[in-house]
Amino acid sequence: MTIGIINGPNLNLLGFRKPEIYGNEIFENTLKNLKQDFPNVDLNYFQSNIEGEIIDFIQKINRDKDYIGIVLNPGAYAHYSYAIADAIADSTLPVIEVHISNIHARDEFRAKSVTARMADAVLTGFGRDGYRMAIDYLICNHK
Amino acid sequence: MTIGIINGPNLNLLGFRKPEIYGNEIFENTLKNLKQDFPNVDLNYFQSNIEGEIIDFIQKINRDKDYIGIVLNPGAYAHYSYAIADAIADSTLPVIEVHISNIHARDEFRAKSVTARMADAVLTGFGRDGYRMAIDYLICNHK
Amino acid sequence: MTIGIINGPNLNLLGFRKPEIYGNEIFENTLKNLKQDFPNVDLNYFQSNIEGEIIDFIQKINRDKDYIGIVLNPGAYAHYSYAIADAIADSTLPVIEVHISNIHARDEFRAKSVTARMADAVLTGFGRDGYRMAIDYLICNHK
Amino acid sequence: MTIGIINGPNLNLLGFRKPEIYGNEIFENTLKNLKQDFPNVDLNYFQSNIEGEIIDFIQKINRDKDYIGIVLNPGAYAHYSYAIADAIADSTLPVIEVHISNIHARDEFRAKSVTARMADAVLTGFGRDGYRMAIDYLICNHK
Amino acid sequence: MTIGIINGPNLNLLGFRKPEIYGNEIFENTLKNLKQDFPNVDLNYFQSNIEGEIIDFIQKINRDKDYIGIVLNPGAYAHYSYAIADAIADSTLPVIEVHISNIHARDEFRAKSVTARMADAVLTGFGRDGYRMAIDYLICNHK
Amino acid sequence: MTIGIINGPNLNLLGFRKPEIYGNEIFENTLKNLKQDFPNVDLNYFQSNIEGEIIDFIQKINRDKDYIGIVLNPGAYAHYSYAIADAIADSTLPVIEVHISNIHARDEFRAKSVTARMADAVLTGFGRDGYRMAIDYLICNHK
Amino acid sequence: MTIGIINGPNLNLLGFRKPEIYGNEIFENTLKNLKQDFPNVDLNYFQSNIEGEIIDFIQKINRDKDYIGIVLNPGAYAHYSYAIADAIADSTLPVIEVHISNIHARDEFRAKSVTARMADAVLTGFGRDGYRMAIDYLICNHK
Amino acid sequence: MTIGIINGPNLNLLGFRKPEIYGNEIFENTLKNLKQDFPNVDLNYFQSNIEGEIIDFIQKINRDKDYIGIVLNPGAYAHYSYAIADAIADSTLPVIEVHISNIHARDEFRAKSVTARMADAVLTGFGRDGYRMAIDYLICNHK
Amino acid sequence: MTIGIINGPNLNLLGFRKPEIYGNEIFENTLKNLKQDFPNVDLNYFQSNIEGEIIDFIQKINRDKDYIGIVLNPGAYAHYSYAIADAIADSTLPVIEVHISNIHARDEFRAKSVTARMADAVLTGFGRDGYRMAIDYLICNHK
Amino acid sequence: MTIGIINGPNLNLLGFRKPEIYGNEIFENTLKNLKQDFPNVDLNYFQSNIEGEIIDFIQKINRDKDYIGIVLNPGAYAHYSYAIADAIADSTLPVIEVHISNIHARDEFRAKSVTARMADAVLTGFGRDGYRMAIDYLICNHK
Amino acid sequence: MTIGIINGPNLNLLGFRKPEIYGNEIFENTLKNLKQDFPNVDLNYFQSNIEGEIIDFIQKINRDKDYIGIVLNPGAYAHYSYAIADAIADSTLPVIEVHISNIHARDEFRAKSVTARMADAVLTGFGRDGYRMAIDYLICNHK
Amino acid sequence: MTIGIINGPNLNLLGFRKPEIYGNEIFENTLKNLKQDFPNVDLNYFQSNIEGEIIDFIQKINRDKDYIGIVLNPGAYAHYSYAIADAIADSTLPVIEVHISNIHARDEFRAKSVTARMADAVLTGFGRDGYRMAIDYLICNHK
Repeated sequence: MTIGIINGPNLNLLGFRKPEIYGNEIFENTLKNLKQDFPNVDLNYFQSNIEGEIIDFIQKINRDKDYIGIVLNPGAYAHYSYAIADAIADSTLPVIEVHISNIHARDEFRAKSVTARMADAVLTGFGRDGYRMAIDYLICNHK
Repeated sequence: MTIGIINGPNLNLLGFRKPEIYGNEIFENTLKNLKQDFPNVDLNYFQSNIEGEIIDFIQKINRDKDYIGIVLNPGAYAHYSYAIADAIADSTLPVIEVHISNIHARDEFRAKSVTARMADAVLTGFGRDGYRMAIDYLICNHK
Repeated sequence: MTIGIINGPNLNLLGFRKPEIYGNEIFENTLKNLKQDFPNVDLNYFQSNIEGEIIDFIQKINRDKDYIGIVLNPGAYAHYSYAIADAIADSTLPVIEVHISNIHARDEFRAKSVTARMADAVLTGFGRDGYRMAIDYLICNHK
Repeated sequence: MTIGIINGPNLNLLGFRKPEIYGNEIFENTLKNLKQDFPNVDLNYFQSNIEGEIIDFIQKINRDKDYIGIVLNPGAYAHYSYAIADAIADSTLPVIEVHISNIHARDEFRAKSVTARMADAVLTGFGRDGYRMAIDYLICNHK
Repeated sequence: MTIGIINGPNLNLLGFRKPEIYGNEIFENTLKNLKQDFPNVDLNYFQSNIEGEIIDFIQKINRDKDYIGIVLNPGAYAHYSYAIADAIADSTLPVIEVHISNIHARDEFRAKSVTARMADAVLTGFGRDGYRMAIDYLICNHK
Repeated sequence: MTIGIINGPNLNLLGFRKPEIYGNEIFENTLKNLKQDFPNVDLNYFQSNIEGEIIDFIQKINRDKDYIGIVLNPGAYAHYSYAIADAIADSTLPVIEVHISNIHARDEFRAKSVTARMADAVLTGFGRDGYRMAIDYLICNHK
Repeated sequence: MTIGIINGPNLNLLGFRKPEIYGNEIFENTLKNLKQDFPNVDLNYFQSNIEGEIIDFIQKINRDKDYIGIVLNPGAYAHYSYAIADAIADSTLPVIEVHISNIHARDEFRAKSVTARMADAVLTGFGRDGYRMAIDYLICNHK
Repeated sequence: MTIGIINGPNLNLLGFRKPEIYGNEIFENTLKNLKQDFPNVDLNYFQSNIEGEIIDFIQKINRDKDYIGIVLNPGAYAHYSYAIADAIADSTLPVIEVHISNIHARDEFRAKSVTARMADAVLTGFGRDGYRMAIDYLICNHK
Repeated sequence: MTIGIINGPNLNLLGFRKPEIYGNEIFENTLKNLKQDFPNVDLNYFQSNIEGEIIDFIQKINRDKDYIGIVLNPGAYAHYSYAIADAIADSTLPVIEVHISNIHARDEFRAKSVTARMADAVLTGFGRDGYRMAIDYLICNHK
Repeated sequence: MTIGIINGPNLNLLGFRKPEIYGNEIFENTLKNLKQDFPNVDLNYFQSNIEGEIIDFIQKINRDKDYIGIVLNPGAYAHYSYAIADAIADSTLPVIEVHISNIHARDEFRAKSVTARMADAVLTGFGRDGYRMAIDYLICNHK
Repeated sequence: MTIGIINGPNLNLLGFRKPEIYGNEIFENTLKNLKQDFPNVDLNYFQSNIEGEIIDFIQKINRDKDYIGIVLNPGAYAHYSYAIADAIADSTLPVIEVHISNIHARDEFRAKSVTARMADAVLTGFGRDGYRMAIDYLICNHK
Repeated sequence: MTIGIINGPNLNLLGFRKPEIYGNEIFENTLKNLKQDFPNVDLNYFQSNIEGEIIDFIQKINRDKDYIGIVLNPGAYAHYSYAIADAIADSTLPVIEVHISNIHARDEFRAKSVTARMADAVLTGFGRDGYRMAIDYLICNHK
């Protein structure tokens, strides 16, 4: 039982990037904690700054029977990537969109997510906890 | 330790209303399950179709020391009630906004939430689980 | 056989309010005439300036088997109350929206009705006759 | 005592055209029924797909003393024909705009009627009954 | 030496139509006066409520060597007829657009003319004099 | 001689709510000062978070001969309540709209007031003094 | 086996009209070539500058069993004729929309086609070849 | 009998400025010709690049009994000067707005004139002749 | 102790200009009354139709220690002068913006004030009293 | 003689992805058929989900003398990739844009193509046939 | 060899005005430094708060053979002065637009410059160095 | 001391691409000249058509102590890449955005730069000199 965790552009800098907004822990630690919290599920982590590679990865794990869902933080691509939105729409795996900060409470352009429209559900503003909540939801709702 | 759970307009009809979107369980059952899941916390439930009564309730529990947070599903008021948004902004308790369906994936007017901008975090599309996740988050992040 | 007649905000002042637009008869007289015109149907009249009470009433008469339909003049709530619109959408009774004046021929904001989108049909500009026409239609189309 | 009934573009296909929206009776039958319902009034029916011919007809019957009003279903011209709107504005006869389906509940562009702004009153969503209601209103309000 | 004078929809009613805006003289008199003012030029008058017939006429007189220009009052078609605008753009004869009233000073939709963009020049608000001024200009600038 | 002073949603929290914007005195003190400043006029204070109750109150004091005017701080309802706007428009008493902070200098949505359009005059940014200035104006301009 | 070829406003001037955009061959030659290219199919050509006549023709050939499809160049009507769009939507024959020039590469208003939304497919920018390609497609996809 | 002729910003450069659009004659020559064409009227010419001086001049000649009208080419101020628009609205003298080029046929921002809304009539695209036509109209319509 | 009173474009015509909106007293009288009402404060009046001179004056009195505030009626410049707005923003003296008529209740463009955003407070619709109220406020809040 | 065929994001899943919209054949079969249909031309196929790789490929084949044109299905990048649009604009080879489904008949955002503006011609809604038609056009128009 | 340096509204207050944004040196010092940096070029400095005087100055130095270019900081006029934009467009001297702060990173209205569209090049965000860079560029590119 | 120079999509074709806009020198020559002009600084050049690789590079050189700044020409990504904008915002090195042509003077979509908002300063329209000016600025302002 595997879940894909995808972080989009600039999220490889978590821990360094605007810590007052995104937290000051590097994501590797967050990931380690998540793995401890969910010992019975494989968490396959992927990060890329390249829009198309995120699409490639969504497509790849859709072909793999072991996966039960995707936790996707599309970063800024959320606001304009209709290409990733199409990849989500084509996904047969459930996709939970996660944003660390509350996207409704920042710059106006961040309030709109074109990918959220194609996702199954969206979590925004829960900090790093959002990842854990999304994973938990995918496991509980997997039949 | 108490959490306020607020449902806005038309959410008293959960179980009857568009079950394909909102689920076919009445909210009383959902509430009973939530109380079983969180035996150590008081869940004080409030529903009203009246915008101002929701503001009244948010204000009231802000004056009560026992409360640690608010789970708010503003229903359609999310899309235009700057008055509720102001009540959230004035709240010293954390407010988690919950929508049962994914508001980004329905009518265009539902994609915009003026209350979300003032909330701490937002959950949308997780069905009834959204309430449980929000309560869990409030408890875990309460210090 | 009962029909609910609902008047929204400021419509309790009919007869006093801008008579050149809304007519100079008080609504009680209009209602008396309607009852004479339709002796075989109960006309249950409700007026409120409170958005949520209109929702309450729509919900209440939807649970009452005697009702065959609703005649709703949402007043200014027509232009922004997505909450009432949702109540109409959830209604299993047919809802006819009535406006006394022609909303297309006045201020620009009045030309848009968010509740009309969820109603079954709309009458605008027929003065007080609009109520009679809507009742007549509900009776004729009741099977 | 004559009333002009005008159907705009594509309404000559009623009965064949999208029957789930517009009904499956041809308009000739509707007209026959209307004539039976109103034996004391001449119903002069005119249909054209040509915008300017609708204007011609509105102008023509305005010059004829026998007419007491116009029932106009402008079809899709409702959404952009400022030329028909001007003809309505210039009409000394009352003009009732009728739409078979509820124009507020379909494509977004249909929710706006530039002709409704100049009409006396508008009926939308009452199916074929809309014509009967409009004729009835014109007769009752004719002094 | 001939000039085409074209009046669009509802302008056949000049003299009867909103005289406070458009003047209370019938256009036949205006035309008679124009012919007296310009004895050396043929004024070929055409009026139609039909958009396509106006295009037909513009095309026809473009093929006639006697013409030196067109005076066009497109009426309400000015605001949306890209088809007439294209006919003007294809015209090798100069086209002067005339509006009797000042279109900038009335309803907001009247301030925009899609045909004016393709015309050589525009006169608006000069009442019936606008026709005379346009004819005079065409004669003076004809080489 | 009575003046109605109406405070809208969340204004019952004045003194507690964002004191850097709204001041840190509770409104009861402000009211006491106002009563001292205007010993010859009755100041009838009403606060509600409920849109419709504000309309009820505006209507009620319009029926009372003792009143000479209304001072209304509609709070966030200023930005969308066409229903309150209609109540103001129907008011035969003069209505002065007051905002404690300068609504033009904050969030973009606050710069637009749909109720101000129907009010007689508007004061914004004068802090609590705005109430005093409005009362003073009503008294001076009462004949 | 017949195909209707419809050209909208100003397209009767092909060969004369802006040859650098639309080509300098008259359409009669284009039609002759098309007939030679498709000897086994009747090409019934219709051109009109009148919006409603185009609707009439679309309706007429829909009632004729010999037709297998329609090639429609709506000219400028593409940009605003919801009436023609409705006729296309009601058509049981497939409709291929053709534009000689690339409408996306010219004036901004030309980039939007309200008729294309109802058509089966759209060809734009292929010059006169667009007609041949559309006919070919209709024949190949006719079963 | 005097007419004020006002040229706005950059129009002092006529003859030098974009001659392909504005003509290559200096305005002094145009003015000399105008004076010869109208020997019985004083033409008082004023040019300024300063918005407020144009307002000053409009006000000044409104106080002078000899004036019968104003010919105003506001240049680029036409597109945004609500201050000049107010001066025109306050003018008791008729104001004819003139633009040398056709403002509807150039940059999109030039198609909108906020001053034209307050003027009596507008001439655009007639080159230098526009001044002569405007003067002529003022004289003829002076009673 | 001095207060600068600045009137923008066309306000030198108060008393003559649209008296039904702006009152029929000349401003000199208003000023005389104000000086009598506030005998202990110097009122330095400045009027200009020139945007930049208003900026000059705002800057000048900011350098003068005697001043305690500015009462500014920017007239139509309120709607577009970001330059005056910047001068207000740079002002260390408090600036009260005054409009004689209620700018929210007239043309749509008047409802927006770009200068109000930078001012400390705004008074609109109080007629000439607005000046007195603003001066009074500046004196009372001067420490 | 070579033609480049480029498929953008998610089009590698053709045959699997929403077959009711895009058809249920994998693109490899489509390509095989195309190669049989055009035995005398090399079809060089390229697919990538990465925006920049599509630009790379367009640039590369522009430097290769064997190419006579490009058939490009930009997928969702059509709606926002000004970078690909620039690559098309810089292309000296003709570029035909192809969409399998009719982009005008789906989500509103799909109706706008920023790449189409720079392409030579566009085919939309012809299913897989669109590729064949585009290739055929490129060959026929190659001189 | 002379270069005109023009500063628009409120820029005479540099050194005093918002020093955290614009720097705390008075412009006279900046100018002195610039003159030292460019000993072989005359720097003719002009500052005005009056839009039309800026136009006057641009026109004047265009008539002077000694000038090789203009460095223009239009201040807030950049955002709406189409009149200055026209003066730039008419300038035969190259015009470099300079903003001290990065206009893209402040209020939304500052991100748009209507004058930049007519300028040759734009520097924004380089502080006082922007002037030096612009002068240097003008000298280097002068042939 | 190193400066990163980044060119975005299609800028690898400089010298070949629209030379009338972008100049006809290949960028390698430009780079050689820059290296000669700045012998004491390392210029590390990077070009990619791939959005994410540009982000990768910005991140990489931010981790390298030798760098003192970044010169970034984002090409068309400037108009929509919020992902690159975020990378710039996260950069601790100063970022100067450079455009060869004046982006304000071309297509409307080019006038808006979402990356400029996060950059320190922007140079547009200086041709290849823009790179030199940006480098020079970075060196001079490096402390």
